[in-house]
Amino acid sequence: MRHRAYSRAELARLVEPRSIAVVGASAREGAFGARVLENLAHYSGELYPVNDRYPRIGLLECYPSLKALPQRPDCVVIAVPREGVEPVIDEAAALGVGGAVVFSSGFGEVRAAEWHATQARIVRRARAAGLRMLGPNCMGFVNQSLRAGLTFIPEYARMPHRAGPVGIVSQSGALGYAVAQAAERGAGFSHFFSAGNSADVDVADLVSYLAEAPECRSIALVLEGIGNAQRLLDSGDRAWRAGKPVVVYKIATGEAGAAAARSHTGSIAGSQAANRALFERCGFVQVGELEALFETARFFARAGRPLGSGVAVVSGSGGAGVIAADMAERHGVPMPQPRAHTLEKLRGIVPEFGAARNPCDPTGQVLNNPESFKQCCTALLDDDQYGALVIPLGVALRGAGAERVVQIRELAAQYDKPICTVWISEWLQGPGSADYEDEPKATLFRSMDRCFAAIAAWQMRSRQVLAETRSRLSPPDALQRTHAILDAAGEALGERESKRILAAYGVPAIEERVSRNADEAVRAAREAGYPVVLKIDSAQILHKTEAGGVRLDLGNDAAVRRAFEEIVASARDYAPQAEIRGVLVQPMAARGVEAIVGARVDPQVGPIVVVGLGGVMVELLGDAVTALAPVSPSEAREMINRLRGRVLLEGFRGARPADLEAFALAVARISELIADGADRIAEIDVNPLVCRPDGVQALDALVVKQKD
Amino acid sequence: MRHRAYSRAELARLVEPRSIAVVGASAREGAFGARVLENLAHYSGELYPVNDRYPRIGLLECYPSLKALPQRPDCVVIAVPREGVEPVIDEAAALGVGGAVVFSSGFGEVRAAEWHATQARIVRRARAAGLRMLGPNCMGFVNQSLRAGLTFIPEYARMPHRAGPVGIVSQSGALGYAVAQAAERGAGFSHFFSAGNSADVDVADLVSYLAEAPECRSIALVLEGIGNAQRLLDSGDRAWRAGKPVVVYKIATGEAGAAAARSHTGSIAGSQAANRALFERCGFVQVGELEALFETARFFARAGRPLGSGVAVVSGSGGAGVIAADMAERHGVPMPQPRAHTLEKLRGIVPEFGAARNPCDPTGQVLNNPESFKQCCTALLDDDQYGALVIPLGVALRGAGAERVVQIRELAAQYDKPICTVWISEWLQGPGSADYEDEPKATLFRSMDRCFAAIAAWQMRSRQVLAETRSRLSPPDALQRTHAILDAAGEALGERESKRILAAYGVPAIEERVSRNADEAVRAAREAGYPVVLKIDSAQILHKTEAGGVRLDLGNDAAVRRAFEEIVASARDYAPQAEIRGVLVQPMAARGVEAIVGARVDPQVGPIVVVGLGGVMVELLGDAVTALAPVSPSEAREMINRLRGRVLLEGFRGARPADLEAFALAVARISELIADGADRIAEIDVNPLVCRPDGVQALDALVVKQKD
Repeated sequence: MRHRAYSRAELARLVEPRSIAVVGASAREGAFGARVLENLAHYSGELYPVNDRYPRIGLLECYPSLKALPQRPDCVVIAVPREGVEPVIDEAAALGVGGAVVFSSGFGEVRAAEWHATQARIVRRARAAGLRMLGPNCMGFVNQSLRAGLTFIPEYARMPHRAGPVGIVSQSGALGYAVAQAAERGAGFSHFFSAGNSADVDVADLVSYLAEAPECRSIALVLEGIGNAQRLLDSGDRAWRAGKPVVVYKIATGEAGAAAARSHTGSIAGSQAANRALFERCGFVQVGELEALFETARFFARAGRPLGSGVAVVSGSGGAGVIAADMAERHGVPMPQPRAHTLEKLRGIVPEFGAARNPCDPTGQVLNNPESFKQCCTALLDDDQYGALVIPLGVALRGAGAERVVQIRELAAQYDKPICTVWISEWLQGPGSADYEDEPKATLFRSMDRCFAAIAAWQMRSRQVLAETRSRLSPPDALQRTHAILDAAGEALGERESKRILAAYGVPAIEERVSRNADEAVRAAREAGYPVVLKIDSAQILHKTEAGGVRLDLGNDAAVRRAFEEIVASARDYAPQAEIRGVLVQPMAARGVEAIVGARVDPQVGPIVVVGLGGVMVELLGDAVTALAPVSPSEAREMINRLRGRVLLEGFRGARPADLEAFALAVARISELIADGADRIAEIDVNPLVCRPDGVQALDALVVKQKD
Repeated sequence: MRHRAYSRAELARLVEPRSIAVVGASAREGAFGARVLENLAHYSGELYPVNDRYPRIGLLECYPSLKALPQRPDCVVIAVPREGVEPVIDEAAALGVGGAVVFSSGFGEVRAAEWHATQARIVRRARAAGLRMLGPNCMGFVNQSLRAGLTFIPEYARMPHRAGPVGIVSQSGALGYAVAQAAERGAGFSHFFSAGNSADVDVADLVSYLAEAPECRSIALVLEGIGNAQRLLDSGDRAWRAGKPVVVYKIATGEAGAAAARSHTGSIAGSQAANRALFERCGFVQVGELEALFETARFFARAGRPLGSGVAVVSGSGGAGVIAADMAERHGVPMPQPRAHTLEKLRGIVPEFGAARNPCDPTGQVLNNPESFKQCCTALLDDDQYGALVIPLGVALRGAGAERVVQIRELAAQYDKPICTVWISEWLQGPGSADYEDEPKATLFRSMDRCFAAIAAWQMRSRQVLAETRSRLSPPDALQRTHAILDAAGEALGERESKRILAAYGVPAIEERVSRNADEAVRAAREAGYPVVLKIDSAQILHKTEAGGVRLDLGNDAAVRRAFEEIVASARDYAPQAEIRGVLVQPMAARGVEAIVGARVDPQVGPIVVVGLGGVMVELLGDAVTALAPVSPSEAREMINRLRGRVLLEGFRGARPADLEAFALAVARISELIADGADRIAEIDVNPLVCRPDGVQALDALVVKQKD
């Protein structure tokens, strides 16, 4: 597995070719090979149609093969049927071509093993020759700075040429191109890539490329599968360091698979929680709807760093101003009132029947005195409380807007604070909208909700601390001891073995004594001190309470004797095949807040750790936070802070606060365990981990091994 | 206060005039009086400009006054400055005109009391003469069936004439007209109304009008304030009975005021919870964003009754099909797999590399065989599992779409199941979109999320049972007894008086004994039986726990004695001015699930009742359900069912289930109390109401009187 994403230099001949050959070029209208030539009509480099059936196509000379070309092309577009792809790749590889785009479908995405093998062979040969391949089963790509559409989509040739700061990356060509069509209404992009089967170059590589491409200032990513999580992390890191925000819309968010998990952790931290954790670590901004993707990416392309946490609104419609305030509250964005000196300025501009406040309504007088609108904006932008300005645009009027656009352009040039215009009218491409779309310094939203969601994400993102350097928490022999326990344990681990693994990683757990009969149980109980807890000891019984295998708060010998017999009988009843090794005796733990800490190896994302509070908080309400493992103690602390139920830990209703540092340390240690042991451990459940003012203690634990 | 909304007959001369006079008509370009004439250029009735400065305007004869007109007009549009409005209304009222539209602002919405008085006077005179007035401070209205724009907005005259099934009602003219501009992209409406100051006719009246207007099949409502809740309920009832779904977007959703409430209820059931409760009782569908309003209303105009709970998706793009499945899961809409015979049909149509399932992907072969698309749709629409069909539309292509629209039109004509098309492309008004907009039998969405949100709301709405007839639960003298307790109580009520009011309404509460000194407390404790609870008894101390005024689980005389002294000392410390009547002694209640039942009189919505579970569920997580009071026991049961924490009541982790019928009955009784006593009681808190397998019991109660 390749964990490093390709750099811009590695992809330059594919994405920024100085010469392109189109194999399968065609003169037949509508054919892929004809459409590609059309989409390259404005391409400034050398263009070579290749097809032995034509001497020329249009004004271009046509060549019978790649070998016959007057020069070695940087990139080859392969517009031939599936069966013809492999020989072309071979020929290109032999010639030293730098990149290939393969449209044809029917390779890795179909059932037939034969074509999987062909795809694998093609990739191997291409890589050996340093040939980077996009596809197969893709729609190709567009590089606006070269005016090059290496794609068969029929619309690109007729699309208005408009470069913009957003690079679009998608596995699905149709979804990605649907986003790129924003250019048709006036909002340009820098690149559009469809990765298709991602046999060689995948979305992580394309994000990595865009991180270095100067025309691109932010990245809009439509993601279906994760592919290789390490490579995505690498690309996220490159984009972060390059200061290029990545906005991701993840499709395929179904959780049907989560139900199959064996432990609690699986059900409370499903694949979407794992994905979110990955995106957070990547530094990606996640949006929940496709229509938010491009707008949000455009906003981030321009937003810079927040210079104030508040947002000011200037609106000629009272209603639109109210909606802005509603959405600010919904997304937790502050809309403070202006400072005294700002207020004074506004009062000098806004008439009495207007609103000299935030939201500011300069009223219809702006029709008579257009400067007053700009003066209100200036007064608010000068106020250091405000980091952004939102301007709702109401009813679309023919002939209106042009003057306002100029004012907004002037404001945007003058201030380093983002300006957002919000198009309210259902006349979606009404008069003036194209001017706002085309404005490079302000962002046009078509939804107040999405505008404030983007602002909230921007404020959060700037507050986010980059993943810190983690130092090891556990002793050097911890993994070695874990392996020994796993080796001895057979298929599944009981509570005792699970706790021994926790102990190896320094997670405190309650002590226990093993008893094989009632007499031993009574002896153990006296040693532990009453009251005690009895639990069944069997590696095959994962859910002890369900099996009737737990008795709490036993106060004397008789109760222990009775409980021993009942537990064993219940467990035999529940799981007749289970090997029952005896009954564990533990002292009854002191009260505290019950937390749950889990970890598992997600098949796509890798090792993750999840933390929640016990009982209703996590079971009924799903109040849990997931992160990629390992996390440092301070990252674990941050996870705990994000729990809605955290006040329970902080001393709810007069209780003493729990030891949050000890809690965070235990979470970090468990995350280190799953990260270390990911190849052998599938899931870990510590439930409950009791959090008290004087520390934490695991009362029960379950480690599930990976299936071989 | 008028609690009944105007009927269509009462508003007919205003909204469906056979003749219109425009007072303040003007020949000066851009003047309100000129724009109105432009917007009436296609009006089919008699049109009379009125202005003594012109003999004619354009081709129309102009009259010096209303009296000078050749006939009494049905409706007068008053396009004169504020100062001139009152005389015109007087003249119109004297003539027996049926309706008036007043644009001018500066009446009830400004501070000057003088103009409030003028507005009130105008309304009084108009009403006395049977003259219905829209405004003042409004944008007027549009009646598409008359092609009449009684509005000064400059765009209507040039808007494409396109009637549609949605009536648009808004207080804010700018927001409402921004929605109506959907007609500019091809999606028509039947009426647009802006109610402005709503001095006479308000949004409730306009909803009521549309309920009876045959051109309108659903109503899109932008609402700022509630106005009169009874009138809104009346209009909701009329619309429901007429089978016209009302979709509402509420603006001004801030909760800043909730913090000021004196009891728990105020903070857990703020004004938005009250509004939602009102809308539910009205039968309205609520949307959370302006951009969802028109689409959703158009969907409901066409949707009819669900004939199956599942949704089928036919998509040529795999990615769009996946998004559909994601959004179905997000909104709880089932997307079942086809039945066996449907599957067989699909397999005969869909090629091997497509997807003969749900979502169905007939692949690019539809380009060669367009019928195959329709065949897939037909197969799925014939399957009785599916109540609706969703068709994502991907990349917008010039020249494409026309054939697909025809197919969808044919399908829509053939089936009584709604068909939704979803425009994926960011080319918002791309090729073909106007055809889809114009299609009367299918609804075009521009967001998959909103499409499935609308489908989910449609499925829920059809399941919703109309408010049942409630029979009285409490004895005939309950209110009389309550009044007596309130009369005696002075400003605030202590726990004892509050519980006596509950008792009058049949809500079981724990018994208590009053003690004025430690000896009496010990005697009371012995009578009640140990262990006991002691609580401070003071009408001025609403939050007893905060005051250190509660001690639980006291097991003997000495503990009671000590607790008595401590409680009194703490309370004196906490509230030196409070009159301390003594200490209440109660038996320690048996364990159960602690619920909270509250009620309050919302200033806009009226009496409401709220139910939640105690502790973290409601305090940290806001898990509470609000309804208009009174509710019947079965409606209360439905409220309880909607709590996320309801499983705690149903026997969580092996506990015995609580008596839900008794719980629901108590909620219904408390709702009857607030409804009966709304003029004197401000808030009621029953916290906790303990729910046990054998019934419920209020352990504490607080009744707050209305301020005089």
